[in-house]
Amino acid sequence: MATAANANKQSLKVGLIPGDGIGVEVIPAAKEAILALGSDIPKPEFVDLAAGFEHFTRHGTALPDETVQIMKEECDCALFGAVSSPTRKVVGYSSPIVALRKVLDLYANVRPVISVAADSSQKPAVDLVVVRENTECLYVKQEELKFTENGKEARATRLITERASRHIGQMAFEIAKGRPRKHVTIIHKSNVLSVTDGLFRETVREVPTLPELAGKYDDVTIAEQIVDSAVYRLFREPQIYDVMVAPNLYGDILSDAAAALVGSLGLVPSVNAGDKFIMGEPVHGSAPDIVGQNIANPLASIRSAALMLRFLGYTKGAERIDRAVEEVVREGRELTPDLGGKGTTTGVTEAVLKKI
Amino acid sequence: MATAANANKQSLKVGLIPGDGIGVEVIPAAKEAILALGSDIPKPEFVDLAAGFEHFTRHGTALPDETVQIMKEECDCALFGAVSSPTRKVVGYSSPIVALRKVLDLYANVRPVISVAADSSQKPAVDLVVVRENTECLYVKQEELKFTENGKEARATRLITERASRHIGQMAFEIAKGRPRKHVTIIHKSNVLSVTDGLFRETVREVPTLPELAGKYDDVTIAEQIVDSAVYRLFREPQIYDVMVAPNLYGDILSDAAAALVGSLGLVPSVNAGDKFIMGEPVHGSAPDIVGQNIANPLASIRSAALMLRFLGYTKGAERIDRAVEEVVREGRELTPDLGGKGTTTGVTEAVLKKI
Ligand SMILES: CC(C)[C@H](C(=O)O)[C@@H](O)C(=O)O
Ligand SMILES: CC(C)[C@H](C(=O)O)[C@@H](O)C(=O)O
Repeated sequence: MATAANANKQSLKVGLIPGDGIGVEVIPAAKEAILALGSDIPKPEFVDLAAGFEHFTRHGTALPDETVQIMKEECDCALFGAVSSPTRKVVGYSSPIVALRKVLDLYANVRPVISVAADSSQKPAVDLVVVRENTECLYVKQEELKFTENGKEARATRLITERASRHIGQMAFEIAKGRPRKHVTIIHKSNVLSVTDGLFRETVREVPTLPELAGKYDDVTIAEQIVDSAVYRLFREPQIYDVMVAPNLYGDILSDAAAALVGSLGLVPSVNAGDKFIMGEPVHGSAPDIVGQNIANPLASIRSAALMLRFLGYTKGAERIDRAVEEVVREGRELTPDLGGKGTTTGVTEAVLKKI
Repeated sequence: MATAANANKQSLKVGLIPGDGIGVEVIPAAKEAILALGSDIPKPEFVDLAAGFEHFTRHGTALPDETVQIMKEECDCALFGAVSSPTRKVVGYSSPIVALRKVLDLYANVRPVISVAADSSQKPAVDLVVVRENTECLYVKQEELKFTENGKEARATRLITERASRHIGQMAFEIAKGRPRKHVTIIHKSNVLSVTDGLFRETVREVPTLPELAGKYDDVTIAEQIVDSAVYRLFREPQIYDVMVAPNLYGDILSDAAAALVGSLGLVPSVNAGDKFIMGEPVHGSAPDIVGQNIANPLASIRSAALMLRFLGYTKGAERIDRAVEEVVREGRELTPDLGGKGTTTGVTEAVLKKI
């Protein structure tokens, strides 16, 4: 895909940030999957890194400086599990995943959503990629609270820049170019947000016409959809989508919506991708309701490891993991309860490892 | 529901704003349905009012002052069809529906989404109401564009006030109280937007504890969901929701998502409700792709008329329309193509009128 391969490396240093809740249960599965690849990738080395709400409650910070420093200075890539959200506003707490995306300049959140067809010769019913801008929109977290005579008033800034929109647009076209359908749908709400979403829409549309990219994306077709109607059509006719490119918050919502179509969030992987760093992350959350029961679905994490490897250029290793996951899902013998099975996290992981 | 009945009136003056596209085809159907009620409501009088993108291109304004003035001074209520969105930024154009909601202080957008069970003795699979704040959030449309050395930067303001959140919160509790399940789910993204969505969440939660409402909502239960996961769960287990209360943009997306669950946007009505005025509006858009073919589904508009009457206190008339629509859908003989039928706008309207 879009980032440079580091195929000549002797070793691959992977930061592991399990975070909170089931993150702690599924990240080890991803580690096992990487280890199972043997010589298809450079020798992996793992380093455990702290982050999360639980770390915040114990140590007063959700993202220790050390975690960021080790990622920046020592790691080739990383895997992030999940973070819990406090159920009330907690002074001083701020989401470590949102912070990591910015501090490592992981400007793209790439979320392939693909269903597993009953028969391996069939086309999957859903096969799309949400390419989500990952650093701006309402995620700049510039908020203020005022006390007025009419009560409290809160304001947040939504930032859309030409630069980030072009960056994510190019990522979307690059990914589309490598797919059979080669089709990009731009998601926006420029009927209301004519300036911010207008800038996003125009900038992404112009990517193929940039002089330095001239001709490169001539075979990629472009469509657009207003976000509310995009969600509606996603459920009614998912096959109209190939690559969906969206500002941060719409991308967040769209990827969860798409996940509902393929049976479970427990299947959907992502990478947070920058030009210098790749961090895999399952799309699901910390799922406090099922923590500690050994029933969390490890497949999203395992697939996130594969996607991360793909972005690093280790296509063969990535394929092996993806095929193994696909077979386990297709066979349906060893699945966690979110997919209607009676299996366990460790059982499903074992089943995948055997097939890798 | 929440607004005062004007049951002693001699006549009911209804503004009709068909707007663009299929709005022009479906609003007449709603008018016919109201006329069919006879003496169950005060004698209806209709006044045709202009608004929309087409009106803008011909006359330079999307919402003539006269339209607003007549609505304010003469009408008891109104029905709005749909507006087209320009496919490129058009200087001077601004959505008339967004403007009308603000200028008439229609602070709540109430969107019941209910599926029609195959057998009238069964419970519908989906039966929820999206209660969407209708005047603020990103819809304040405060946007600015800057030219920097890194290119264009656009910013939008997202406004959440305690006052509007309390207002919409109370509407949600009031609606929930009148329903069998009596359950409110607050939708937010306070894990990222701790100040704005934090204010929304806390303010809505506190509604039942306000001294002037003490005890009133004791029988209503409260839950909350982060918006991305709310959309996911909406598709997987719609039965967990009864009343969903949300800031403006989330409500916009959620109601389209919910509409996908009941077969078609062509079925889903809404009202824009304030303390002094009620405006019905189908949730669907102007659907330029099917304009002029007499195949637009009139049921969302007809149901919007019923919902409007319900809010005005004319419950009996509203029920008659709703039952007629339900029977037509259940019988399945006369349905437009969006519901898999071969019927026409006029044919479906006739079928409903016969049953009213
Ligand atoms: C946990 C939360 C801050 C995060 C987000 O909104 O980006 C999550 O929903 C995701 O999609 O990774
Ligand atoms: C047309 C558009 C401005 C409008 C909105 O976003 O509110 C529409 O999507 C709706 O839901 O009524």
